[in-house]
Amino acid sequence: MRKYFIAAVSAALVLLTSIPALADEGMWTYHDFPSAAVAAKFGVTIDQAWLDRARLGTIRLANCTASFVSPNGLILTNHHCVESCLAELSTQQNDLVGNGFLAGDRAKERRCQTQIADVLVGMTNITDRIAAAVAGKSDRTANDARKKALTESEQNCEANSRKDRKSGPLKCETVNLYNGGQYWLYQYKRYTDVRLVFAPERDIAAFGGDPDNFQFPRWCLDMGVLRAYENGKPAQTPQHLNVNFDGPKAGELVFVSGHPGSTDRLLTVAQLETQRDIDIPRWLLRAAELRGRYVQYAKSSDEAARSVEDQLNGLENSIKVRRKQLDALLDDKLIAAKRDAETKLRASVAADPKLAAAIGDPWSDIAKAQAVYRTLQLPLTFIENGAGWGGHLANYARVLVRAADERAKANTDRLREYTDTALPRIEQQLAAAVPIYPEIEIIRLTFGLERMREWLGPDHPLVRELLSKESPDELAHRLVSGTKLNDPSVRLALWNGGRQAIDASDDPMIVFSREVEPEARALRKRYDDEVEAPVEAASEKIARARFAALGTSVYPDATFTLRLNYGTVQGWRENGVEIAPFTHLSRLYERATGAEPFKVPDRWLAAKPRLDMTTRFDLSTNNDIVGGNSGSPLINAKGEVVGLVFDGNIHSISGSYWFDTAMNRTVAVDTTIIRTALHDVYDARALAEELGIR
Amino acid sequence: MRKYFIAAVSAALVLLTSIPALADEGMWTYHDFPSAAVAAKFGVTIDQAWLDRARLGTIRLANCTASFVSPNGLILTNHHCVESCLAELSTQQNDLVGNGFLAGDRAKERRCQTQIADVLVGMTNITDRIAAAVAGKSDRTANDARKKALTESEQNCEANSRKDRKSGPLKCETVNLYNGGQYWLYQYKRYTDVRLVFAPERDIAAFGGDPDNFQFPRWCLDMGVLRAYENGKPAQTPQHLNVNFDGPKAGELVFVSGHPGSTDRLLTVAQLETQRDIDIPRWLLRAAELRGRYVQYAKSSDEAARSVEDQLNGLENSIKVRRKQLDALLDDKLIAAKRDAETKLRASVAADPKLAAAIGDPWSDIAKAQAVYRTLQLPLTFIENGAGWGGHLANYARVLVRAADERAKANTDRLREYTDTALPRIEQQLAAAVPIYPEIEIIRLTFGLERMREWLGPDHPLVRELLSKESPDELAHRLVSGTKLNDPSVRLALWNGGRQAIDASDDPMIVFSREVEPEARALRKRYDDEVEAPVEAASEKIARARFAALGTSVYPDATFTLRLNYGTVQGWRENGVEIAPFTHLSRLYERATGAEPFKVPDRWLAAKPRLDMTTRFDLSTNNDIVGGNSGSPLINAKGEVVGLVFDGNIHSISGSYWFDTAMNRTVAVDTTIIRTALHDVYDARALAEELGIR
Repeated sequence: MRKYFIAAVSAALVLLTSIPALADEGMWTYHDFPSAAVAAKFGVTIDQAWLDRARLGTIRLANCTASFVSPNGLILTNHHCVESCLAELSTQQNDLVGNGFLAGDRAKERRCQTQIADVLVGMTNITDRIAAAVAGKSDRTANDARKKALTESEQNCEANSRKDRKSGPLKCETVNLYNGGQYWLYQYKRYTDVRLVFAPERDIAAFGGDPDNFQFPRWCLDMGVLRAYENGKPAQTPQHLNVNFDGPKAGELVFVSGHPGSTDRLLTVAQLETQRDIDIPRWLLRAAELRGRYVQYAKSSDEAARSVEDQLNGLENSIKVRRKQLDALLDDKLIAAKRDAETKLRASVAADPKLAAAIGDPWSDIAKAQAVYRTLQLPLTFIENGAGWGGHLANYARVLVRAADERAKANTDRLREYTDTALPRIEQQLAAAVPIYPEIEIIRLTFGLERMREWLGPDHPLVRELLSKESPDELAHRLVSGTKLNDPSVRLALWNGGRQAIDASDDPMIVFSREVEPEARALRKRYDDEVEAPVEAASEKIARARFAALGTSVYPDATFTLRLNYGTVQGWRENGVEIAPFTHLSRLYERATGAEPFKVPDRWLAAKPRLDMTTRFDLSTNNDIVGGNSGSPLINAKGEVVGLVFDGNIHSISGSYWFDTAMNRTVAVDTTIIRTALHDVYDARALAEELGIR
Repeated sequence: MRKYFIAAVSAALVLLTSIPALADEGMWTYHDFPSAAVAAKFGVTIDQAWLDRARLGTIRLANCTASFVSPNGLILTNHHCVESCLAELSTQQNDLVGNGFLAGDRAKERRCQTQIADVLVGMTNITDRIAAAVAGKSDRTANDARKKALTESEQNCEANSRKDRKSGPLKCETVNLYNGGQYWLYQYKRYTDVRLVFAPERDIAAFGGDPDNFQFPRWCLDMGVLRAYENGKPAQTPQHLNVNFDGPKAGELVFVSGHPGSTDRLLTVAQLETQRDIDIPRWLLRAAELRGRYVQYAKSSDEAARSVEDQLNGLENSIKVRRKQLDALLDDKLIAAKRDAETKLRASVAADPKLAAAIGDPWSDIAKAQAVYRTLQLPLTFIENGAGWGGHLANYARVLVRAADERAKANTDRLREYTDTALPRIEQQLAAAVPIYPEIEIIRLTFGLERMREWLGPDHPLVRELLSKESPDELAHRLVSGTKLNDPSVRLALWNGGRQAIDASDDPMIVFSREVEPEARALRKRYDDEVEAPVEAASEKIARARFAALGTSVYPDATFTLRLNYGTVQGWRENGVEIAPFTHLSRLYERATGAEPFKVPDRWLAAKPRLDMTTRFDLSTNNDIVGGNSGSPLINAKGEVVGLVFDGNIHSISGSYWFDTAMNRTVAVDTTIIRTALHDVYDARALAEELGIR
């Protein structure tokens, strides 16, 4: 699957020859991992040393997970996690997505300009600090005070780390767990020089394409290899994980260490209904149409197909996710179960007069805020959140225009995405000389403007202002052909020039963005004050109620921060048919049609005679993962990598809301096919050697 | 507004100077019109002569309503109802959709090859006949027997009419009212020679385009004029309606006579949930993507834009309808109200032991059938109902292949859409020399194949068979470039050649359709037996329960058969703002941007100095209409046409499920702007004279 919505790692030494299917639900933090439960259930000891090793071997990429697999900074992740980098490095003459890439030696490893690699090196509970900052304040003032306190924590943490010789400068990010129930300050070592080492051809990495996405059985070599650099040299990473190229066994205990992006299991019924009624259907309608525009554009030439492929893949992946999320929310059983759980929690509050007096009725507060949100959702989505414009160029303009205002303020007064902690990452992206395709920019921008006019109506003041004389097509053409924002040096000049440079600019995209900005700001303010503030306050109260009833025996929703979970290698039963947990190489060839996306690359056809057709290819486990876990190492009880998580089955998507023990499965590449690929297909000698393949 | 989902007629003499907003719900049949209620409420007498006149002046077109407005067969309807005809008559050199059309004299009126005009001349209640045919049979056998009896009734009716010198040959169609509560045999006089007389430019007919569709206030001259011919001469139509070019007054009683296409107000909760969870979301996803493909294709050249416009307009209209239908179904208040009504009706059955014993629990029967349908819906939609292929050429092939089998059977054994009654209309469509655009055919077919593979999965047996060696693109190109079905004579030869010709054909599109046919047939059979049969049986039982509780004080759901309803000219309140019931010409010019779809045609710009800017343009009423009512005459109490229904407001779309008195409004063209247009803008002298414009 792609970027958002995948995977979970699990690793284990098989102590029992066969473990029955168990409900191994939970995306546990490293500071609250239930080692006792694992010991009781599997007889396996997960001690602090094991946890530290797994944590320090796990990497957070921009949208994915990865792991260090050599002492010299070698990183194993998914092909779909390096696809953007491949696309950025591709040209009409050399399509790295289609053809794959093998550096061969280190001098030929190529920088992924927009990539980063973060390792979680410290975790501090700051719940009390944040609670003190908001105590006694109204929802709205508390919301501002909370954000100020979070910014301050991050700012101090980074400043201190810069003075600390041992740690060196760290990235500090606060994390909200249990929807406001806990606040943590996570500290990361960040690598910003990440280079491409190896990627197979798209046709084997994503064999089956979108039709097979979120399906199992599966035959995808969804792997990509990067390397972290420091000071121009391969990073020293003694904390790496070892790869065991024999893969796991059926029934084996396995762990997934990674960064699940987002789940909504703790939301109230009112919040789920907002997603069901408004957010997801509207998003799907827009995404499906944009997909149609991309697909049609891709058919206009080979170069069009190549240049739009990465964006189209991401979009199709998200469509499948949202579609199945909507199915889950439309299942009245799910809403009934959520309503039931909510009723029970409310009853437990009512039974505790002191607690009841302290928190009131936060469920109603959230429902009221949802009603406000429903009236705001359309203008907010189109004007503030970008559905009404879109494309790289318009996004650059938005960031530059907004940052110019924000950076003139004190750090703690800024919107959280423009604090000092966030600026280096923005600057990295502005400076990256990635290709911009004007035709695709025009498609995106025209589409956004057309749909904004449809949904907000032609008489909405901003719509009238923007489109009073030009059609969406005409406006988009004028902006895209007239702007200079495709040039990184122009972007950096505007970035460094601050508000004065922005105010003075006559770049048409900057002018457009300035025109949108006042209404966008006003909507954001209304959202923050009238929706976010009461929801944050109420959610924190619900978290208190939940802690009172359940303690921390439940895990927090996913937040794209590091989690660990456990499960076993197993298939499932689908319509009475048993799905086996492993696929094998032979079936790849049988299933090929010769036409994409079911085409086996030439290299694999040529290698066929010398390959063992019984080699295991992909596998399924019952670990509890979600998008963001893509690229996670599947780890055995000895702490070795035995698989590379890249997807979940179709039932895993409902994992956004609940964990379906019987059906929800993680899908991973078996390390045995990785050995075969590197050694017998790609003849990647140096890489194989570095990975310890004989 | 377009084709499906529009309008309702109402006409009235204002006896009271101001009538408050009243809930004038109901799409009444002409045989059960509540004249007494109208008399009581408005003091207006609607007698049988009035009803007969309105009925005989109303026309059913292929997808719309219309009315006779001169004794020489002149027909008034909407521009969007003649848009397909305009597109069929257009060429790259002469775009009649864009430029409009004025015949000037009768010799230049141009045939709309796929159009028909039906006038309802007789109505016979055959409920008892159908009840006798199914009595004592199991659901499945009853379903077959019912269809046989319906076919027999139509067959006998048509045979008798051919012997009747007075009536001449008639089209006979059975109608199922109240979901099986009543069966009627409707007899129509059908005109198959319908010619184009006048259409304005698209830019004034559909001013505001899709963004303004289903909106009010509005400035659309959505009119088109046709003429019925018999034996090559203008049809004699003494039963026509007179047009009153002074339009209606605010608050005036008005009637809509027309053919509302389909409503689902009497469905059970289980059936509504099927629409909410499955049918509408899946349809919307596909339609939105196809829209994106069409839009992107349209941008590739002027000719591409011209050739795809008609299909794109229809699609965008349907998307807006389905989107708001989904919103309505996602409104828990609607489902709660439906559940409440259902509970009450079930209670009334339970209180009547004799009735309860006779009908059992039909609601559960329907719920069970819905569960079966949910498992069948995907393959049925893609394989039998055409979502997996699509386009004109593939549709011709399906009809030819299936008709070859069906026509070899006895008339009463055939699928209902291939009975003798239906064949002439099929043949008319096969014989029509309408333009086929290969590029659009390829878009449709590729799209269908790609989505079929996505939704049924690449391992579905039929998907594997069709796409084992070719990609969807390759297959679609081969079929479209290889088929000869774009030639009407080839189609007719296959039609006349019957099964032998079909079996012998090596036309690739016929070969493809033959390959799909067995699985499509099997799915259709399962649907008919396992879903339709129990739902028909149960619905008839629910109708009995409803009649027992309510009599015929309720109206039947819309069935694209003739209905009459009443209401008054009025606006509504939206977010605290009063919407006035009339728009005026001046605002058209103020609102224009110069770019489509907000561009005023040159002719209207040139005419501006001589036009009265206070002329009324469009208007709103509270009549209860739905798609199919497009083109309906808005009639006053004297039986004169005072408006031309072309749309509903955005709230009217929830009218599929219930009538929202406060918000649901019909939108019509005022006859005053029609006079201005014909007389002062288009200088359409002969036409103006025939319509009685001085």
